[in-house]
Parts: sequence; structure tokens; C-alpha cells
Amino acid sequence: MAEKSIIQVGMVGFGNVGQGLYRLLEKNRTLIEDKIGAQLKIKRILVQDLAKVREVTVPEGMLTTSYDDIVTDPDIDIVLELMGGYEPARTYLLDAMRRGKHIVTANKAVLSVHWDEIIQTARQHKVDIYFEAAVCGGIPVIQAINDGLAPNNITSIYGIVNGTTNFILQKMTEEKKTFKEALLMAQKKGLAEADPTLDINGMDAAHKLAILASLAFSKRVKIEDIYVEGIEGITVQDIEFAREEFGRVVKLFAIAEVEGEELEVRVHPTLIPEDHLLAKVDGEYNGVLVTGDFVGTTMYYGLGAGKNPTASAVMSDLIYVSRSVHDNVAGEISNCWFLSDNPQIKRIKKMGDIKSRYYLKFNVVDQAGVLSAIARILGEHQISIASVIQKEQKKGDKVPVVIVTYEAVEKNVQEALKKINGLPFVREETLLIRMERGE
Amino acid sequence: MAEKSIIQVGMVGFGNVGQGLYRLLEKNRTLIEDKIGAQLKIKRILVQDLAKVREVTVPEGMLTTSYDDIVTDPDIDIVLELMGGYEPARTYLLDAMRRGKHIVTANKAVLSVHWDEIIQTARQHKVDIYFEAAVCGGIPVIQAINDGLAPNNITSIYGIVNGTTNFILQKMTEEKKTFKEALLMAQKKGLAEADPTLDINGMDAAHKLAILASLAFSKRVKIEDIYVEGIEGITVQDIEFAREEFGRVVKLFAIAEVEGEELEVRVHPTLIPEDHLLAKVDGEYNGVLVTGDFVGTTMYYGLGAGKNPTASAVMSDLIYVSRSVHDNVAGEISNCWFLSDNPQIKRIKKMGDIKSRYYLKFNVVDQAGVLSAIARILGEHQISIASVIQKEQKKGDKVPVVIVTYEAVEKNVQEALKKINGLPFVREETLLIRMERGE
Repeated sequence: MAEKSIIQVGMVGFGNVGQGLYRLLEKNRTLIEDKIGAQLKIKRILVQDLAKVREVTVPEGMLTTSYDDIVTDPDIDIVLELMGGYEPARTYLLDAMRRGKHIVTANKAVLSVHWDEIIQTARQHKVDIYFEAAVCGGIPVIQAINDGLAPNNITSIYGIVNGTTNFILQKMTEEKKTFKEALLMAQKKGLAEADPTLDINGMDAAHKLAILASLAFSKRVKIEDIYVEGIEGITVQDIEFAREEFGRVVKLFAIAEVEGEELEVRVHPTLIPEDHLLAKVDGEYNGVLVTGDFVGTTMYYGLGAGKNPTASAVMSDLIYVSRSVHDNVAGEISNCWFLSDNPQIKRIKKMGDIKSRYYLKFNVVDQAGVLSAIARILGEHQISIASVIQKEQKKGDKVPVVIVTYEAVEKNVQEALKKINGLPFVREETLLIRMERGE
Repeated sequence: MAEKSIIQVGMVGFGNVGQGLYRLLEKNRTLIEDKIGAQLKIKRILVQDLAKVREVTVPEGMLTTSYDDIVTDPDIDIVLELMGGYEPARTYLLDAMRRGKHIVTANKAVLSVHWDEIIQTARQHKVDIYFEAAVCGGIPVIQAINDGLAPNNITSIYGIVNGTTNFILQKMTEEKKTFKEALLMAQKKGLAEADPTLDINGMDAAHKLAILASLAFSKRVKIEDIYVEGIEGITVQDIEFAREEFGRVVKLFAIAEVEGEELEVRVHPTLIPEDHLLAKVDGEYNGVLVTGDFVGTTMYYGLGAGKNPTASAVMSDLIYVSRSVHDNVAGEISNCWFLSDNPQIKRIKKMGDIKSRYYLKFNVVDQAGVLSAIARILGEHQISIASVIQKEQKKGDKVPVVIVTYEAVEKNVQEALKKINGLPFVREETLLIRMERGE
């Protein structure tokens, strides 16, 4: 077959990442086309508003407000979806694939929710679909899981996959900012959206974990399978206390781990030792530890968001798919692990069944018998205490009592806390932070 | 074209890694064949001694002492070269490619030295050649550079790429072992060869750097281009001193960095701050920081050697190539960047022209005027002093004077040291350790 000398792309969405990509292609065009072995041309770009002022100027006629201009154009080989969200992104992607267009997308939301439909359509119509930018910005972690670690039974993923919350937690830790102050700083820096809910409440991390875990364990992990807890409950005082007394820092972790025949998938704040590899993942950076049965533990680190790193990931996919189009092999490579169902994993573990160590902060009235009452209830629920810290306070005040447990079962802990929170001397709901297992 | 239902492999060499690979295929066969979409069969294995007792038992007739049995077998699609060394590995590889066999190899020595010949032969005969295991064991760093970071102009690589020296330096740092004791520990652990010369003197790291840099910068980097210094000169006292007085640890770094139109490539001990990301890369682990113009700084971390991690990397290549063979597209993908010559890099920088900060330990007689004599010579060579530490000693003894410089030019430092080493009060050759730039 003849080789294609020009690969043409239709871009859907032209926000930050889209404009970053456009500039990346302008700046590094020689290098990129050298690697593809053909010219790469962005033919049309779908936007909502033609007249909007943008940082990047494009040739006249390139912008369009009609998706039809992209999807029905026979010259367009690859549809690049950078609009985000569920709809119309889902419809656009399915439509494009049915017409034989290959796909590169950065859309974690649509992928994590409509995974089966999207992947099946890609296979059915023999088109490529790549989405490195959907998880952890510029870090090639999806490629590592899909290819670099392919022969391994992956046993666990521990990741810091949301830069916004990681930035906020760091500002709270190092500069003792309140949650609100730190959030404002993240927004000023362009890290957090005007509505940062999905970052803060852990849902963004859950979207990413659903994709990573589905690939790593060859097991479809849905958003609703994942236990999700955000960072809203964490105060500067907790962070300081955990650091001073236990040498630990708080990170929002996305965890997927095989336990026997079950897969644990959860997103929540986690206390890790200060000398832990992921403790050094600061600010807007992401870091993911992936462990396999032969490779051992590996780590991938880099900027998890931002227009340039994300554009880098999108373009790396675009180079790969373009090269395949150029060589007439696009859609030929059977990415068959996408749909295989790992027979070794029977089900998703219930959150109540997980085991962890726990950092528990009780806010109690300073009176005799309080500690023994708490300790008794914990004991009744098979929760062993590893250490207790209660600092002297002015008499009669509310005092924090911090208890770190040995490994215990989540539902036992939850039941014990329900009882303890109902005691008359307990003044606020008890704070629970899980600690990385195995420490 | 019909899809191949069995992919057959001829293995050359059956040592640690070969046996690890054989076991990996036995243990994870279902997962591996599911990802390939075909059966994967090791048909023949070339060994030197059929009768040798091995940990792994293979079916009768699989072993052979004749390379012809592998290379002339029309059933064999892929030759897996795990013998190491220059010859006969080079001849075997070239022969196999000329006969249309695809290649997976873990051989850093033959690749780094015979790069042009091997890559050209692969292109000429349209065969795949993959070598993830040649650098950093199980860490998919070659894939990251080739694909994940493909659209970037890579600006620097800073890596700990030799596990043996990293293990030795850590034992010297944390357990205050002497170099010899630590080396013995590494040998007992199976990390260092009986003859560990190539690890200790930095040549193993240079082999790996030549491959990484050639790929990352699209510029052929030869072993002789690389400035190489091993860890033989480092003592426990230096390590302790650097840590206590400057909060720095010693690591053997492989560095490749673009400076204007030149590329720096060097391997030498480097002092880095204790909170540096690579300072946490301990023992047998490797870690590589790769920075690109759009992606920013990324890091890849994992076990840099050992039969299982290395087998994982070899098998990941084998899956990739097997899938391509299965889909009849092997050799079609134009890995064209292999041979492109980056026009932005005009030449390799001479070591004398590099700039760095320096840690200099002078061993001098404790007498008046010594420090001023040293400082004067440094000043005459445009070397500015950032800090000096001289601790009180018993009178008349030899004392160490440590000077940390601001950024200076290497050849100026070398000339100054030559003069200083010739002074009558200098008792031993001055120790020089470079410090990571930009600190």
C-alpha cells in the first residue's frame, strides 16, 4: 500500500490544551514530522465561538462550529478530542470511530464512564484510540502500564494523581495556609477550576484511577466501584500534628491493589512517612507507583496537568497514531487487553472489608475516664492501639486525643467511631485518616 | 494477510535473565498470550554447554550449541539475544536481521558500540529491533523517551543507572562500610560481577548513557564521547563530611544535557542535596530524570538490574514485537528517529568546557599560609569560593580543607588543582567531586 504523505487531524475543542498542542506543533514541527515520517496537518478545529479572542492565531477557515465539517471530511484521518465532559464528547467520539476515524483524546470523564462502549466501538471499527493525556498530564504512565509492564501481573498502584489537591496540601503543610487560602492560591495559579469541586472531593482522582486500574488489572473498574473521600476534612492542625508527632505527611492517594481474589480501589487522604518516595511529589506534580510480580516497584513522576505537559502527552499519542496511519497499520494492532476480563480478580472489595492502619483524632472534654472509654470501644471492635498522644491543655478545655492503630478492618473502625462519636464527652466528629499499609 | 497464530522465538544465551524470562513466560503465559493474541513459543535456546545444570528445566531438544539451528529455522520469527558482550553477539544480531528475523536484545555493550551498523541493518531489512532491557532493567525508560516524550526537545537526562555502584555508595553512606566491604556485600547479593570493574569505573553507566542520549537527542553519542569517572576515589570520610557539613549525598550520575549547540555527556560521582528526588533512589534501584521543553521534568524509577526486572523488560519488548508479527505489521513502523541527526546539536562539548560547582578536598600540612595559597591559585583561575571548612586538628597533622566553589569552568579547575597538588604542603592528590548544577 502507498504511504500517506500528509496526516490530517480534526481537533474538537480549542481551550488551553488545544492551544498548547497547536503551539507545540508549530514549535517542534520538524522533530515531530521527522518521527512520523509524514506531514502532520491540523485541518479543522471545532469551537463554540468563532469570534472569541485566543492566544493562538490560526489560519482563516480552520475554525468551525460544525462537528460535521470534521467528521464527514474524508481527508481527516484522526479526530483529536480535547473538549472534555460527557456529552457531546461521547457522541462525537462514537460517531468518528464509526466513520473510521482514529481517536486521540484527553477526556478522562468520558472514558472512565463510557469505557466499554468506547473501547468496543474502537475494536469493532478497527480504529486506534489513545488517551495518554487523560491520566497524569505529561507522564507516560498509561503507556508504561500497557506496554512497559505488560508481562506482569500488576499487584498495586499507589498514586498522587491530582495536582490541585496536592498543591493545596503542600501549602497547608509548608506554609501553614488554611484550606481556603491554599485553594485560592491554586486558583490564582490556574491549577484549580473556578468550581474546584471535582478536584477537592476526589472525583477527578477517581476518574483517573478507574482508567489506570481498568488497564492495569484487565478488569473494568467503574467510578461507582471506587471508594472516594476528598481533602475537605483535613485541617492545618492535623497536618502539623501528624508531621511533628509521627513524621508523616498527608497526600491524597489513589489506590488500586489486589488482595487475594479481590481488587481494592479507593481514593482518600493518606498519611505516609516523610521519607516515602511519594512524599517528595510536591505541588502540581503527580507520581504513581506501580508494582508488578516480576518488575517489582516502579515509579512515574512529572507534571500532572497544565497545557504544555498535557499537550506533550496528546502529541505523543498523535505521533504514534500518525505513524501507524502513515504506515497503513493503524487499527491493526490488537490492543486486546482492553477488553479481557482478568479471571484472577473475582470482584471489587467492599470498603468495609479493607484493612489499614488508622490515625484517629478525637475531640473530647478533658475529664477522667475518657481515654479508657475510647480504648475499651476500640478493643471491643478488634482495633489495637499502636500509640496515643494527648497533650496537656488548660483544664476544662476541649482536647484532641490522637490514636494510631495497628492494622484493623475498616468496618470495625467505622462501627467503633459511630459509638465513640455518640458519647457525651465527644465534642466533634472524630477525624479519620488512613495510613499507608505495610508501615 | 493471514494472522499468525504461533509466534516462535529463538533465544541466544540462557543465563540469569534468560532463565528469568523462561520462568516469566511459564508463570504469566495466559496474560502474555492474551496480550499478543497468539501463542508465544520459545523454540530453541543457544547455550555453550548442553550438560550444565540450570535452575530451569526445559524440554528435551530445546537447547542447542549451534547458532545455525536458530538463525536458519524458518519457523523462528524473533531472535532474543541475551548473551551480552560484543562478539559473537554482534555477528549473530546482524546475521539474524539479514535473514529477516526481528530482534529483542538486552545487550547494552553491543548496542552502544555498534549502534549505527545494527540500526542501519534493521532498517535495511525492515525488521523490528527493541532493547528496553539494555538500560535500567525493568524501568520502561527507553519507551518513555521514544514514545511518551516523543514531541519534546529533550533538554537533559540525569540518571542513576548503575545499581551496583548505587548499592555500594548507600552502604558506605548509611552503614559506614568501606568501599571494599560494600563491594563484597554487593557481590554476595549477586549485584556485582566477579569482576566488577565495568560497574565501578563507570563504564557500564556510560554504555547506558550512550544509548539513552542517542535516542533522546537524536544524535549518535559514542562511548568515547562520554567523560567517565568511577567511584573508586570516594571514601567513607568524604561521604560523611559532605552529608554533615553540606547536607549532600554522593551518587554516580549519568548526565546528558544540551547547552546551546553542544551536548554534554558525562558519568561521574555527583553531590546532590539530600532532598533531591534522586537522593531517594537507594540500593539496587535506578532513577532517571528526563526533561523536555513541553513536558517539563519527568522521572522513571525501579529496579535497574536482576533477573526478574530485566526479564520483565525483555518480555515487554517480546510482547510488542510478537503482536506486530501476529498482525503482520512487524518492521512496518518506521522508527525513523533512530538515524536522524539533530541539526540543533552541532557537537559534543569538551569536558574542559563544562561548568559545574565543585567540592574540593585538599589534604595539607597544618601550617600558616596554606589556605591563602590555595585560595590565591583558585582565584587566579576564575574560581570563586562559596564556602570553606577546615576543622581543628592536633598540631602538625595532615588536615583536610574542604572548599566548595561557585560555578566554575572544568579546565580552570583542573589547571588550578595541578598547581595546588604540586605545592610542598599538599600531602595527597586533591579529591574533586562535582555538584549538581543549578544548586
